[in-house]
Amino acid sequence: MTSKTLDLNCDMGEGFGAYTMGNDIAILDYVSSANIACGFHAGDPGTMRRIVGAAIAKGVAVGAHPGLPDLQGFGRREMKITPAEAYAMVLYQIGALSGFAIAAGGRLNHVKPHGALYNMAVRDRQLSDAIAQAVRDFDPGLVFFGLAGSEMIKAAEALGLRAANEVFADRSYQDDGSLSPRGLPGAMIEDPDQSLAQVRQMLAGSVNALSGKVVAVRADTLCLHGDQAGALDFARHIRGALAADGVALRAPAH
Amino acid sequence: MTSKTLDLNCDMGEGFGAYTMGNDIAILDYVSSANIACGFHAGDPGTMRRIVGAAIAKGVAVGAHPGLPDLQGFGRREMKITPAEAYAMVLYQIGALSGFAIAAGGRLNHVKPHGALYNMAVRDRQLSDAIAQAVRDFDPGLVFFGLAGSEMIKAAEALGLRAANEVFADRSYQDDGSLSPRGLPGAMIEDPDQSLAQVRQMLAGSVNALSGKVVAVRADTLCLHGDQAGALDFARHIRGALAADGVALRAPAH
Amino acid sequence: MTSKTLDLNCDMGEGFGAYTMGNDIAILDYVSSANIACGFHAGDPGTMRRIVGAAIAKGVAVGAHPGLPDLQGFGRREMKITPAEAYAMVLYQIGALSGFAIAAGGRLNHVKPHGALYNMAVRDRQLSDAIAQAVRDFDPGLVFFGLAGSEMIKAAEALGLRAANEVFADRSYQDDGSLSPRGLPGAMIEDPDQSLAQVRQMLAGSVNALSGKVVAVRADTLCLHGDQAGALDFARHIRGALAADGVALRAPAH
Amino acid sequence: MTSKTLDLNCDMGEGFGAYTMGNDIAILDYVSSANIACGFHAGDPGTMRRIVGAAIAKGVAVGAHPGLPDLQGFGRREMKITPAEAYAMVLYQIGALSGFAIAAGGRLNHVKPHGALYNMAVRDRQLSDAIAQAVRDFDPGLVFFGLAGSEMIKAAEALGLRAANEVFADRSYQDDGSLSPRGLPGAMIEDPDQSLAQVRQMLAGSVNALSGKVVAVRADTLCLHGDQAGALDFARHIRGALAADGVALRAPAH
Repeated sequence: MTSKTLDLNCDMGEGFGAYTMGNDIAILDYVSSANIACGFHAGDPGTMRRIVGAAIAKGVAVGAHPGLPDLQGFGRREMKITPAEAYAMVLYQIGALSGFAIAAGGRLNHVKPHGALYNMAVRDRQLSDAIAQAVRDFDPGLVFFGLAGSEMIKAAEALGLRAANEVFADRSYQDDGSLSPRGLPGAMIEDPDQSLAQVRQMLAGSVNALSGKVVAVRADTLCLHGDQAGALDFARHIRGALAADGVALRAPAH
Repeated sequence: MTSKTLDLNCDMGEGFGAYTMGNDIAILDYVSSANIACGFHAGDPGTMRRIVGAAIAKGVAVGAHPGLPDLQGFGRREMKITPAEAYAMVLYQIGALSGFAIAAGGRLNHVKPHGALYNMAVRDRQLSDAIAQAVRDFDPGLVFFGLAGSEMIKAAEALGLRAANEVFADRSYQDDGSLSPRGLPGAMIEDPDQSLAQVRQMLAGSVNALSGKVVAVRADTLCLHGDQAGALDFARHIRGALAADGVALRAPAH
Repeated sequence: MTSKTLDLNCDMGEGFGAYTMGNDIAILDYVSSANIACGFHAGDPGTMRRIVGAAIAKGVAVGAHPGLPDLQGFGRREMKITPAEAYAMVLYQIGALSGFAIAAGGRLNHVKPHGALYNMAVRDRQLSDAIAQAVRDFDPGLVFFGLAGSEMIKAAEALGLRAANEVFADRSYQDDGSLSPRGLPGAMIEDPDQSLAQVRQMLAGSVNALSGKVVAVRADTLCLHGDQAGALDFARHIRGALAADGVALRAPAH
Repeated sequence: MTSKTLDLNCDMGEGFGAYTMGNDIAILDYVSSANIACGFHAGDPGTMRRIVGAAIAKGVAVGAHPGLPDLQGFGRREMKITPAEAYAMVLYQIGALSGFAIAAGGRLNHVKPHGALYNMAVRDRQLSDAIAQAVRDFDPGLVFFGLAGSEMIKAAEALGLRAANEVFADRSYQDDGSLSPRGLPGAMIEDPDQSLAQVRQMLAGSVNALSGKVVAVRADTLCLHGDQAGALDFARHIRGALAADGVALRAPAH
């Protein structure tokens, strides 16, 4: 038995106007943190209002999920932006999302960059510094979600922000603690039991990389999805298993 | 001599990316409130950051200037939006602008809708209600700027918001207190002396409509421009004249 | 038996980037004309390329479906645009769509405005004139699709364009030949037999308005949908019934 | 004396909505080809219509100047796009621009990619292949403008397109024939006489790289600017000098 705590997070609010996409809103029943799109890679004011309200109503912590200004590419195409541009676009999106949280009687709890912005920040300390600075300048109490052990975490901690090391149940890892690229054989973990085993091992401080090497990892928050067949079942399953392990499932405190 | 107070406001930050437009930043030396574009009709995160910073550095009150999502039309084309859409788009933009104010160590003081959104709200109480609700839900201490005596003012006051009745020095009025349409002969007042005389009369509670009729008007804030030849001169002139009249030139208190 | 000809058209390509929406591509098996979104209210270059290619491969006539520059509102929100703005935005979108038709070895056959642009043009002759002028300036051989008997048809014919009077199987009509507003009881026709009967009557030159009055109408092209439950069944049904009636189902000639 | 021909080109139409930017329209008096923005990095339908009309009225060849979908970054920020995305976005923009040329009674003569799309294509053969394919699929008679000797030229020629090797009067070159990066000392040539000398040498087939090395270069089209102090004077000067040299200044034939 352990006194370990784990946050379960999911991306939400990724529709735009008449378009819908992404996680089933039912996933809110299984997670402790929702990362809500802020209008750049996805999301629009009406959707943001609705999802923020739903998350608050369910007691799920609300986070901003800022992305690159590329709706057509869903924020998944890398763009060469300067740290100053990253700072301003993240601050803008945090502020916008925060407005909906305030209006709904809640408040913003965390920030998790999206897609290509996240992937670039993982390996680019300057970019991570700029993003973390935007988070801190808005509210030093916000939690910064980033890939476990990456430059994002280092940047957040260097600024005195609380960092949440994010881990994945459905992705395998490389020897350096990065995620295996999606194209690689073995990159995706589709077996629920293997996923659960990986999460349990990560909670204990390590992960078996694709090469077999045991790599140290810290797990503060686990990314869940609700947009695929069986996803809600898996969410329920992992939630139940971890609760049975005595893991407290809750958002990191603001 | 009078103990009257007047706010002088101007629209700012209306560039976008590599594009520049609008008021010379020097106008900040002559006004007490800056209405800063929020990214929908104009403005981008980098510009917002820069202008918010400049306003705060000069002690000018920072306001959000939300507009319709129509960059190509600069927010000047009327769009049929629902009150719910207006609520969400205004709340989004207020939040985004507020983020830059907070990061710069200041805070948002007021909200003034832009262009077609302003013009539609002037005559549409439901739309004004929705916008005022967004302002209040974000922060009930914010001041709501709207055309003097219009539906905007009524909506703000009905929600308990502090309303600032906006008047214009360079526009003539109709018998119902609305602005004369731009196309109409006599709509624009280009003589600085006539402009100053109109402002002085409005501070005393009335304006001579284009028809000659004397119409009651309340003047809390005067809209100034810094983007035309002679505009800064006029700003300096009117500021000096009003100060000499004993009018205190300052932003309405949050 | 009749020698009547009818075109069956549907809107296509209304996704955007990672977002999907609208008619099932299988509807291409049942229609003779496809109206393809051009990137303003919906559609992106990759989607346009794919759908244009699919239509040409199936021998379906390709049309441009230009809309207002309002992706967030899916082109359904009316905007106050000038005729000059309408001309330019329609010409732009026609050209863009045409490029994909040319590259796929085909050519553009028709133009049908979308959503609010269509609805505004129905009743606004100046707007219809501007749109029809754009169509003619691009290619005087293009067919202009508009609501049967509306200002759109008059504008097209005044410029010497071939006009296609569009009728609807699932909407009831008003005494003036306009569609019953969606909110009105009886506006939507959900019974397939009633829809088919209305189409047959329209092919004979009239429609029973909601009031019971018999109104003259000309039917050149019928709008079909493939995005609802039973829609493909209805498309197959109406197609079969009309063929049995001896109606030639084909696109109006370029 | 030489029988050499040279095209003089400039970028045009880079405003957007209420925003203006870029080359003075007077530059059209000095160039033989205009590259007109197509709405992605800059340009809007109304601007495109106006500039295409002005170019055709002055007998200047009209070209499409397609860019990345990044208005906020003016198309200058590199984005990781796939060849298929590049193909579709270029084809879309060519088609859109072509519509205005057709409507104005002219036709498209060439295509020159803009900004980051140009810079990426210079060194990426796959990207250049995709862009050249879009040009050819639209019209195999179009001329493809690319950096002299770069992958763009090779891609165009491999597809049987007529390529125009572009050279610069105000930029120095590296040993491999690429432009010196803007940051580098000596990257910009500001002395008009040195610029003219470089153009004359390039017309003879070589350029002195920044290192002093003589590098072979082919000059089919020279990029001119009209947006800086003295730019029109320089355009007039170089035009006069080259004419005096017996160089025929004209657009490459469609």
